[in-house]
Amino acid sequence: MADRKVISIDGMGGDHAPGIVVEGLERFAQQRSEFHFLLHGDEAKLKALLANAPTAAPRTTIRHTAQAIAMDAKPGQAVRRGKGSSMWNAIESVKNGEAVAAVSAGNTGVLMGMSLLILRTIEGLRRPALVAGWPTRKGISAVLDLGADIDADAEQLVEFAIMGQAYFKAVHHKDNPSIGLLNIGSEELKGHESIRDAAKLIRESGIKMNFHGFVEGDDIAKGTVDVVVTDGFTGNVALKTVEGLAKMISEMLMEALMKSGPLVMLGALLAMPALKKFRATLDPRKVNGAVLLGLNGIVVKSHGGTDKVGFAQAISVAAEMGESRARAEIEESLKRLLASPAAQQQAVAAAPEAAK
Amino acid sequence: MADRKVISIDGMGGDHAPGIVVEGLERFAQQRSEFHFLLHGDEAKLKALLANAPTAAPRTTIRHTAQAIAMDAKPGQAVRRGKGSSMWNAIESVKNGEAVAAVSAGNTGVLMGMSLLILRTIEGLRRPALVAGWPTRKGISAVLDLGADIDADAEQLVEFAIMGQAYFKAVHHKDNPSIGLLNIGSEELKGHESIRDAAKLIRESGIKMNFHGFVEGDDIAKGTVDVVVTDGFTGNVALKTVEGLAKMISEMLMEALMKSGPLVMLGALLAMPALKKFRATLDPRKVNGAVLLGLNGIVVKSHGGTDKVGFAQAISVAAEMGESRARAEIEESLKRLLASPAAQQQAVAAAPEAAK
Repeated sequence: MADRKVISIDGMGGDHAPGIVVEGLERFAQQRSEFHFLLHGDEAKLKALLANAPTAAPRTTIRHTAQAIAMDAKPGQAVRRGKGSSMWNAIESVKNGEAVAAVSAGNTGVLMGMSLLILRTIEGLRRPALVAGWPTRKGISAVLDLGADIDADAEQLVEFAIMGQAYFKAVHHKDNPSIGLLNIGSEELKGHESIRDAAKLIRESGIKMNFHGFVEGDDIAKGTVDVVVTDGFTGNVALKTVEGLAKMISEMLMEALMKSGPLVMLGALLAMPALKKFRATLDPRKVNGAVLLGLNGIVVKSHGGTDKVGFAQAISVAAEMGESRARAEIEESLKRLLASPAAQQQAVAAAPEAAK
Repeated sequence: MADRKVISIDGMGGDHAPGIVVEGLERFAQQRSEFHFLLHGDEAKLKALLANAPTAAPRTTIRHTAQAIAMDAKPGQAVRRGKGSSMWNAIESVKNGEAVAAVSAGNTGVLMGMSLLILRTIEGLRRPALVAGWPTRKGISAVLDLGADIDADAEQLVEFAIMGQAYFKAVHHKDNPSIGLLNIGSEELKGHESIRDAAKLIRESGIKMNFHGFVEGDDIAKGTVDVVVTDGFTGNVALKTVEGLAKMISEMLMEALMKSGPLVMLGALLAMPALKKFRATLDPRKVNGAVLLGLNGIVVKSHGGTDKVGFAQAISVAAEMGESRARAEIEESLKRLLASPAAQQQAVAAAPEAAK
């Protein structure tokens, strides 16, 4: 069935599920005629919604389950007790080969925990990472890890670089994307030891990578590199900080334009096409769909509060990843890394640490 | 002489020094008539510039030195060899009691190293921290550490909280500012152990603090708390990431308005008063002046590329800090912290780590 290009969808995950899930599915189905869908969730509700999704409906198979994961579920418990839920079943369809990728807008922590439990990490890889697109001056870059884990040692940062590279090739169709390690100060001597060691390891390990070296926070918006690699704590803080600022700027701009008297309002109306274009370049829906990389199967996390446009984009990311050679490329690079004398040295050096 | 409210200024630090330094000084002198100034640097150049600064000139004493720290100096070397430079002498004027605070727009790393060497940390404090204002939906918050150090254990995070509290009271005149610890996820169980331990320590140590608990990245722009506490690596990355985004947004907005045909341009012109107001709320000059907290004396770092408005703002931060009870408050809170059973427990627990 995987040959038929099937995407598995958690119909019940997200703040506005299942409504926007089916609307997003319909939108994606209109764009890509070759995909079929497995839709997991409450059959009665999903069936009713599919009645208004004429393009998707003929290509969609509903898999009924009454169980769904609450958006505010506690990850630990929900992962253990979630077997048979729409989220669980969506991931399991990837494991058993029925689908090339799964998409859910449900609880992030539960989705990550469940995906890890069901799909397991690629052999030789220590930890998965969460990656997403990031709007820049030049277009879109990718940043990872956005919070799959909180720490990352040198070897994990190199794993992230390898996975980010494969992701960027798959989703953004660039052959030799440039990779940078996020640091403070661009001098070799600054920053955490793990970051400096990771740079050394990438250079010495013989993995094929267009490695730029260190980048700083402001390089992300500049689009200095295609893939920015950092630990999950820093990545998550940077992402949320920027989301907060973007929202604030957008709101304040509209307030300033709408509350400054009739002449300014007239001006704003005249300038509206440009203002809309400007807002579109920062539209978070355009980069919706974070990929949980490093598992034996593709899982895409949609923003929980997105609309149909955003959800369709998340399905599209799943489609690109599912069709790509990303996993094979990650496995090849990992083999090179693990076989390299540089990595073996680091493993020996790190051993006493790990044994503590 | 400190009774005369003297501020010591590095006349030669910054991308556009000494020109904007003297222009900024003149601007500040016009706002605050009670301050006098010690201006360190090339006497001939500074004298010529002061001829065009009629308000500041009568209250300014030039202290000549031919030595200046290059903006691209390597911190390690420059700190050791920098004795007698305008930056060094500006800090030394604080040490010997001639001035209540020093301001420099010079190389950040050198300024931090030199300040630490000359002024030393407040007794009982482990490490200094760099703090600055951050524009939010509600006004201005403070974030620290912005990069004085790269790591922070639980006790250092509590020190940062104490210093941030004193800074916010001094510079933003709010009696009981709220303090939050930057984390990922607001649940008690998420994030680095050091952050969870710091929260526990603040709650159990008996220091007087309006402690909010954990905040996430998007809470910064929301202005959820007055003071956001994080380690220097995360703080520096967040700051630079946001600076990069703000610059990108500002440029893209202007491009969109100016390159979209005559009607949009007319609209933009009509809306210009509101657009200017909008840009002013995000004006980085308004929050220029990062304070190096935790030393036996106040040192303020101005952005190297700022103009006279920004430099005057940095002097103003120095003035507020110099006049405040910030240092006494930091010392009082530190005493409480060090005397608390909670801190002593943590110190014992941390000891084997430190002894490694």
